[in-house]
Amino acid sequence: MAEADGVDPAGPVTISYIAESAGVSVPTVSKVINGRSGVAAATRARVEALISRYGYRKPIQRSNMMELVFDELAHMWGVEIIRGVEQVAREQRVGVVLTEFGPERNTIHYWIDDTISRRPDCVVTVAQLSDEQRAQLSARGIPYVVFDPTVELPDGVPFVGATNWTGGRSATRHLVQLGHRRIGMIAGPDRILCCRARLDGFRAAIDGAGLAVDADLIVRAGLTQDEGRAAARALLTRPRRPTAIFASNDLQAFGVYQAARELGLRIPEDLSVVGFDDLPLAALVDPPLTTVHQPLTEMAVAATELALALGRGEKAPPAGLELATTLTVRQSTAPPAGS
Amino acid sequence: MAEADGVDPAGPVTISYIAESAGVSVPTVSKVINGRSGVAAATRARVEALISRYGYRKPIQRSNMMELVFDELAHMWGVEIIRGVEQVAREQRVGVVLTEFGPERNTIHYWIDDTISRRPDCVVTVAQLSDEQRAQLSARGIPYVVFDPTVELPDGVPFVGATNWTGGRSATRHLVQLGHRRIGMIAGPDRILCCRARLDGFRAAIDGAGLAVDADLIVRAGLTQDEGRAAARALLTRPRRPTAIFASNDLQAFGVYQAARELGLRIPEDLSVVGFDDLPLAALVDPPLTTVHQPLTEMAVAATELALALGRGEKAPPAGLELATTLTVRQSTAPPAGS
Repeated sequence: MAEADGVDPAGPVTISYIAESAGVSVPTVSKVINGRSGVAAATRARVEALISRYGYRKPIQRSNMMELVFDELAHMWGVEIIRGVEQVAREQRVGVVLTEFGPERNTIHYWIDDTISRRPDCVVTVAQLSDEQRAQLSARGIPYVVFDPTVELPDGVPFVGATNWTGGRSATRHLVQLGHRRIGMIAGPDRILCCRARLDGFRAAIDGAGLAVDADLIVRAGLTQDEGRAAARALLTRPRRPTAIFASNDLQAFGVYQAARELGLRIPEDLSVVGFDDLPLAALVDPPLTTVHQPLTEMAVAATELALALGRGEKAPPAGLELATTLTVRQSTAPPAGS
Repeated sequence: MAEADGVDPAGPVTISYIAESAGVSVPTVSKVINGRSGVAAATRARVEALISRYGYRKPIQRSNMMELVFDELAHMWGVEIIRGVEQVAREQRVGVVLTEFGPERNTIHYWIDDTISRRPDCVVTVAQLSDEQRAQLSARGIPYVVFDPTVELPDGVPFVGATNWTGGRSATRHLVQLGHRRIGMIAGPDRILCCRARLDGFRAAIDGAGLAVDADLIVRAGLTQDEGRAAARALLTRPRRPTAIFASNDLQAFGVYQAARELGLRIPEDLSVVGFDDLPLAALVDPPLTTVHQPLTEMAVAATELALALGRGEKAPPAGLELATTLTVRQSTAPPAGS
């Protein structure tokens, strides 16, 4: 039967294959896929179970539209991501529907319905979609790519991220190579995966240099300037203060700048500072910030190309990929005083 | 005839009114409006002439989609504008198609065709649309609102801007009230209307204070940090240097900071600086910048609400509006030394 239908039951199947397997008509399956009413609950459940068992391959009927979704647009990196998406959209002549869920995420429960009704070729999501939202997209054959996932994803969900562990390690190695021995770290929340990876990279570099990881020199803080400032004050008012601080992101590092100013410490003479992200602002602060460059625009390009390729049915579901970070050395790091 | 058709020939008319006036069928007019082929050139010209004479009122058949267009997305203000648009889009449950024309504007000649085929309810444009693009939107009954126009627009084109003249005047009055008498201005290019308005506001405040406008203290520069820095160096290396500088935007003001540092001048002790825009960065630089706040998000909200109202046929073509700027006093301004 599979051969007769020209489908391969080992991979995603067509709508008629699902209809036959469920013992219902093609229009009924179509109604379930398109979220229309007029299907008995039991039938709907049977069809949905088959779809999630086999997967559903949407006929290649391009709308030349894609969706880009953010929880909240951030001043510092929103534009870099959008520009990467727009670059590919121009090349492939695809319209980009942009959605910001906004401060009250729950108000946007209609997003999945509207997205489905627009029948986009694919979705690139910077927002954290719920398991249910992801399942609804899959059930409609709308492929999606997660941009820089912050939480654990099920296996097989395609994503594009950055090499956070490697970035944390190279930032710390840079400080070690300058001669620093007491290096503080402002770690982000453990539940944010990239923060955990940056912290582990820090630890690996300290270990690798034959130094002991001093738990007193690791302070937790949210990823904001204010929290970075408070954490830096905690580190810098200790009896034996660190000579360098690695912050989990640039905003925290700007908070370190504030704390250092308040305490009369000069950067980099009295304190070296390394950030993570390389926001446009990092080159403009005084002194310009040494930081781990996260290639946000390139990541957005890769995520969009991948999502559109999936939308054209060109690629098998991939495992995801991480783009390399690079250390951008500016003027906030120097050998420790007296070395 | 007009009465029988239920249309008012004094305002925009329906497709059947145009068909009757042109002596062609409704489908022919429809083809012209939707940019489809199969209409003789002469007929097309006759129909287009009638449309631009009467205007065409698109039947209210909402797509619940709108278009937002940028020439190039800027790090510093792109997100503020997008957030305002998204806020209204969420309230009114409208999808936003975002287009960045990108560095090579000409590559996007297909935008108008794709936009028309998407049949949006309205367009908000931060980009400079050409006269032809605007005419094509009008001919299809797609209303548009120009965000913060930088060049002269024909009468009747709806826009949302900011009170640039008033903002330039209040920035300068602030410096005068602090006791400054030698106030320099870094003026932007005259062809950019908002720059011209800010300069005129500066002049009005100097005049109003009974001071003479000193042409030597007005330097032209592009709206970048580098050009601001060069202009500030020119002003600050004069025999009698100004004690305060008003820059046409925040980026120029950041350039003034650089130049002051290089010349060993302290802000605000030796030099007061005022910017224009109130970018997120303005509060983060050292010292935090006194600047004219441009309510970009509120302007985007107003532009989107206006465009969507026009799309619903709720409003007559309006003349446009300017939202008030406010002076945000931070720590880059103080009385002049020795005063």
